[in-house]
Amino acid sequence: MRILILGGDGYLGWPTAMRFSARGHEVAVVDNFARRRWHLEQSTDSLTPILPLADRIEAWRELSGKTIECRIGSVEDGEFLDEVVAEFLPEVVVHYGQQPSAPYSMRSRQTAVETQRTNVLGTLNLLFSMQTYVPDAHLIKLGTMGEYGTPNIDIEEGYIEIEHNGRSDTLPFPKLPGSLYHCSKVHDSTNIHFATRIWGLRATDLNQGVVYGIETDETALDPRLATRFDYDETFGTVLNRFCVQAVVGHPLTVYGGGGQTRGYLNIKDTLRCVELAALNPAERGEFRVFNQFTEQFSVSEIAQLVQGCGAELGYDIEVETYPNPRVELEQHYYNASNQKLLDLGLEPHPLGEELVHSLIGAIETHKDRVIFRAITPRTKWNPGELEGGALSVGQKT
Amino acid sequence: MRILILGGDGYLGWPTAMRFSARGHEVAVVDNFARRRWHLEQSTDSLTPILPLADRIEAWRELSGKTIECRIGSVEDGEFLDEVVAEFLPEVVVHYGQQPSAPYSMRSRQTAVETQRTNVLGTLNLLFSMQTYVPDAHLIKLGTMGEYGTPNIDIEEGYIEIEHNGRSDTLPFPKLPGSLYHCSKVHDSTNIHFATRIWGLRATDLNQGVVYGIETDETALDPRLATRFDYDETFGTVLNRFCVQAVVGHPLTVYGGGGQTRGYLNIKDTLRCVELAALNPAERGEFRVFNQFTEQFSVSEIAQLVQGCGAELGYDIEVETYPNPRVELEQHYYNASNQKLLDLGLEPHPLGEELVHSLIGAIETHKDRVIFRAITPRTKWNPGELEGGALSVGQKT
Repeated sequence: MRILILGGDGYLGWPTAMRFSARGHEVAVVDNFARRRWHLEQSTDSLTPILPLADRIEAWRELSGKTIECRIGSVEDGEFLDEVVAEFLPEVVVHYGQQPSAPYSMRSRQTAVETQRTNVLGTLNLLFSMQTYVPDAHLIKLGTMGEYGTPNIDIEEGYIEIEHNGRSDTLPFPKLPGSLYHCSKVHDSTNIHFATRIWGLRATDLNQGVVYGIETDETALDPRLATRFDYDETFGTVLNRFCVQAVVGHPLTVYGGGGQTRGYLNIKDTLRCVELAALNPAERGEFRVFNQFTEQFSVSEIAQLVQGCGAELGYDIEVETYPNPRVELEQHYYNASNQKLLDLGLEPHPLGEELVHSLIGAIETHKDRVIFRAITPRTKWNPGELEGGALSVGQKT
Repeated sequence: MRILILGGDGYLGWPTAMRFSARGHEVAVVDNFARRRWHLEQSTDSLTPILPLADRIEAWRELSGKTIECRIGSVEDGEFLDEVVAEFLPEVVVHYGQQPSAPYSMRSRQTAVETQRTNVLGTLNLLFSMQTYVPDAHLIKLGTMGEYGTPNIDIEEGYIEIEHNGRSDTLPFPKLPGSLYHCSKVHDSTNIHFATRIWGLRATDLNQGVVYGIETDETALDPRLATRFDYDETFGTVLNRFCVQAVVGHPLTVYGGGGQTRGYLNIKDTLRCVELAALNPAERGEFRVFNQFTEQFSVSEIAQLVQGCGAELGYDIEVETYPNPRVELEQHYYNASNQKLLDLGLEPHPLGEELVHSLIGAIETHKDRVIFRAITPRTKWNPGELEGGALSVGQKT
């Protein structure tokens, strides 16, 4: 298949590009290096040293004999996107080309507006490019479990059958996003759903949980193929952050009560899920939603796991409770369905001590690159005095 | 109260400004004349001749002895909005400052992106200005009944209690917007709801039906105070359009089967609803949603009403079925709640022959200004060959 990957220089984008390339697909990547720029702006960096995109692609060609095409530009630039789509004529578009951080979106008006502009208008541009040039192609969009928030009912995959006053309908599952980034992903879902209904496009939304891990089959081949690994408060995800904290002797940064429960998955499973979606495309006019995670954990459980594994490796790890910079429930019901990807054949890599040991091992290699300043949470969801805002976040019991 | 009206030069904004001013409130309006510019671009115009904003305000001062403040600029310009909010320190912000047309949003990628940028980023800017300078102020936002689409269940006001697998929660009512404009309003609702939960802002979303009418108590005082009246395919609403068509001898433009059912209300009731919302503000942290319409009609019923009234006035009116340029259900269940504004004291002006007669009478005055070219629908929801897209719009039965 001809597979276009937007955001192909990123944590997930680059390994996805190599995986599809390794399996014989024709792959093109698009990136505007926004993530590298955001790191520059906050004087942080990936833990793993990563090559410039052209050099990664060259290293991949050297090792695999396969070519990944590359176009530099932004999804916010509709004419650029039209050119890329019209030239490459993808059968599958995997869209990771977004601002992916909740804290970044909550830092200021400027970053909030940037997030929603990049994500919402970028996806809108893509929908128009696909409608115009490849109306039969399959859009695979990375969504997030964070669109749902923490409702007091079981979370279904995208839709829910509602019975009401003697009638019933299957409707989009209600959303309670927890940051302006998460709001932008809800907006994307609304726009993509619309485009499937009205234009008959095919789309799969992968509502992904919290990803962890540093290695995929292809990144393991050569250090030049490493993917980025973020551990800073802005772009790092919790397990990755905790493992770095463990290695450098920083207390684990548990926000508030630690009862916040979310779905998690290994980066290897992310790649497999995207592949399963690509191999089993949505129908014309279908907006298909998969919840993409393999297990549920609370933040405290993740902290305990890292503490225990660290102890075995000789680390004396403290767990520290930080005043929660986010406005979110710290104890809540959480039970989300993730059956559809399992039905397509996903065989999860469960999270266990082995993974944490190997993750800590990989981090030790780059221990000297850790920037301490970037670890402590600083971005507050509610910078004002209005702590009462948290009162209405809700779950009625 | 100190009331800031964004979009204060518009069809609803200008009469709203006069109404609050007449009742002794301090009123400031903001506009960037986008609507006048969009008309310029398509060589169309308001049926009613309208004065420049400064002249309207001067005429109002002359007649009422009251001053309406005015600032020219765009809600997309966050610094401008900050200045206005910090200077005027409103207690109520009524936000009409948006691109309000579904067909406009569906015309091209450029107009789609413009619509979502103006509406979504404009509202996001406003939320930040309010959080920073007037966190206790009350945001009154014009939403639309079109956010809900036509689900197969009763439409509630913003939220629905869902029972699922033995648990229950009250969650945002699922949305099925019917155009990229309607999508932008869904995005706004998501962002505003978030801001109330996280920052403790107060907000009321008025999910308005289709507005009709040309006259309010204040516009009737003097022709210089007239509000704009659009009848073109882009900015005109259905009853207003049909009455203009009746007067100029154009067949009534019924799209498709005509069974499309929506909520409707008189412009006088719009003003009263906004006033009721302002006088009864939402609580801190509350995102309150009112469905703002007084009656439900199908397009065919509206056409029959105009045809009948026109006949009494000597017009021989044809009703013509146009291939539906939109992708929407033409026969569907529709039953929406509108109790909350009635509970606050709304006394509806029902739609009847008297209103249609007076509307036709007002239109006759300006009959010579009608631009025929602007009447026939031209903007197609699905410009491609993919009529199959319509198949998945849905209502399962």
